[in-house]
Amino acid sequence: MDNANRTRIEESFAAQSMMCTLGAKLYSIDLAQAVITAPILPGALQQQGFGHAGLTFSIGDSAAGYAALTTLPLDSEVVTAEIKINLLAPAKGDFLRATGRVVKPGKRLIVVTAEVHAIAAGEETLVAVLLGTMVPVPV
Amino acid sequence: MDNANRTRIEESFAAQSMMCTLGAKLYSIDLAQAVITAPILPGALQQQGFGHAGLTFSIGDSAAGYAALTTLPLDSEVVTAEIKINLLAPAKGDFLRATGRVVKPGKRLIVVTAEVHAIAAGEETLVAVLLGTMVPVPV
Amino acid sequence: MDNANRTRIEESFAAQSMMCTLGAKLYSIDLAQAVITAPILPGALQQQGFGHAGLTFSIGDSAAGYAALTTLPLDSEVVTAEIKINLLAPAKGDFLRATGRVVKPGKRLIVVTAEVHAIAAGEETLVAVLLGTMVPVPV
Amino acid sequence: MDNANRTRIEESFAAQSMMCTLGAKLYSIDLAQAVITAPILPGALQQQGFGHAGLTFSIGDSAAGYAALTTLPLDSEVVTAEIKINLLAPAKGDFLRATGRVVKPGKRLIVVTAEVHAIAAGEETLVAVLLGTMVPVPV
Repeated sequence: MDNANRTRIEESFAAQSMMCTLGAKLYSIDLAQAVITAPILPGALQQQGFGHAGLTFSIGDSAAGYAALTTLPLDSEVVTAEIKINLLAPAKGDFLRATGRVVKPGKRLIVVTAEVHAIAAGEETLVAVLLGTMVPVPV
Repeated sequence: MDNANRTRIEESFAAQSMMCTLGAKLYSIDLAQAVITAPILPGALQQQGFGHAGLTFSIGDSAAGYAALTTLPLDSEVVTAEIKINLLAPAKGDFLRATGRVVKPGKRLIVVTAEVHAIAAGEETLVAVLLGTMVPVPV
Repeated sequence: MDNANRTRIEESFAAQSMMCTLGAKLYSIDLAQAVITAPILPGALQQQGFGHAGLTFSIGDSAAGYAALTTLPLDSEVVTAEIKINLLAPAKGDFLRATGRVVKPGKRLIVVTAEVHAIAAGEETLVAVLLGTMVPVPV
Repeated sequence: MDNANRTRIEESFAAQSMMCTLGAKLYSIDLAQAVITAPILPGALQQQGFGHAGLTFSIGDSAAGYAALTTLPLDSEVVTAEIKINLLAPAKGDFLRATGRVVKPGKRLIVVTAEVHAIAAGEETLVAVLLGTMVPVPV
């Protein structure tokens, strides 16, 4: 993946204040794949003290979106048309890691998935899977 | 809806630190329906400056979850098994309002929907619809 | 809704051999809404003897698709980009009725819902809800 | 996988008359995975002459369901609580093949995926991905 592609994704990520609020980092980007990590901050919990579904969703959705964006021209942005999340296990541990991937690239629609793992003491637990559709929009 | 039911939902809501981070309020609760409002805070934006899908999702999911919880015994909590969001319009305006409703109550699974509107100068725009499944769990 | 719009939808429906195999009928069409009915044929059952999820899905998806098509120019067809179904109750009774509706029209994406009811001795049971995205394509 | 497990799945499949109507075959079963194939019969088409989404859905949903059933005791059946399908390409070719897999086993909920490929002259095209939730029920 070339530098211009990488740079525009880093800039887009930096422009998402929600990622900053959640403490999320863009861990890696490759063609059709993006990885975001996030701590489980004290301000991002649900009522049982685990990470909120909104946290898991936010990083899963963003990882899927950036995976899609890597496949698009530099004058495109991407928005989520729809996405579904299945929550498999409580979001607890040292941090979360969302891996987004492109299932089917396209000019009008890009089908994407994401997996979100919780990492605790080096052990990984799959806490959510997402399946959705991204739509290119002009910058 | 009796007071005990109302109180446990208010307590559960207050225990979700993510709701506090997003500035969300539990606006109303009735049997099988819950309404949550939230501002579009500077720290909850996506890269184009609109409310992040994670914000819309968080309040939609929570409104749907509390709609489900109103139908359950007092010794139950509820977790999201899965939920899908279709995003219809940018989340921009004075604030967002999520209305969760129960489509089908149940002891094992509760099917729920939510609609999220953006309110700007008194005009409402439907920005997202959600359809999901909640699962009762012991407190 | 004008006759040309109605006619092209009736012709599209007639061209779906799957509808014929399932015994489905286009019951009514109005702007942004379509209703399809179907018997629960002996050849459309699942392993417990109820209507197969594939039957419920097929008429729900088609009703949603035709609801979308009513909003599009005459030189458009529509295909399903994605759709989710929540199954609420066994598909049993005298027949099924799927009501598709447009949630959000659009030139690129049309967000749709459908409800499928089972009718038995005049009583209606909601057996499924669907939420999906249709995409216009040239005829 | 033991013979009793295999046999009950073959019997359940044979009891689904919809599979017979669609010409579908249970191609293989392994622990947490099931493969179903189906021709694209003249009676299973949509309005453009491709395989109907209801066909793709039916075999994808069933493959996912049987993948789930392999993980359950012999006195269980399984029903679909919800499932989402993203359609990626027209269902055209010599036949379709649906591969269902278990993402997360469980006593109350089993999260599943399926991929549906179209095979034409030995070449495979991914035409759909599904993500859903199965629920065990007593036989």
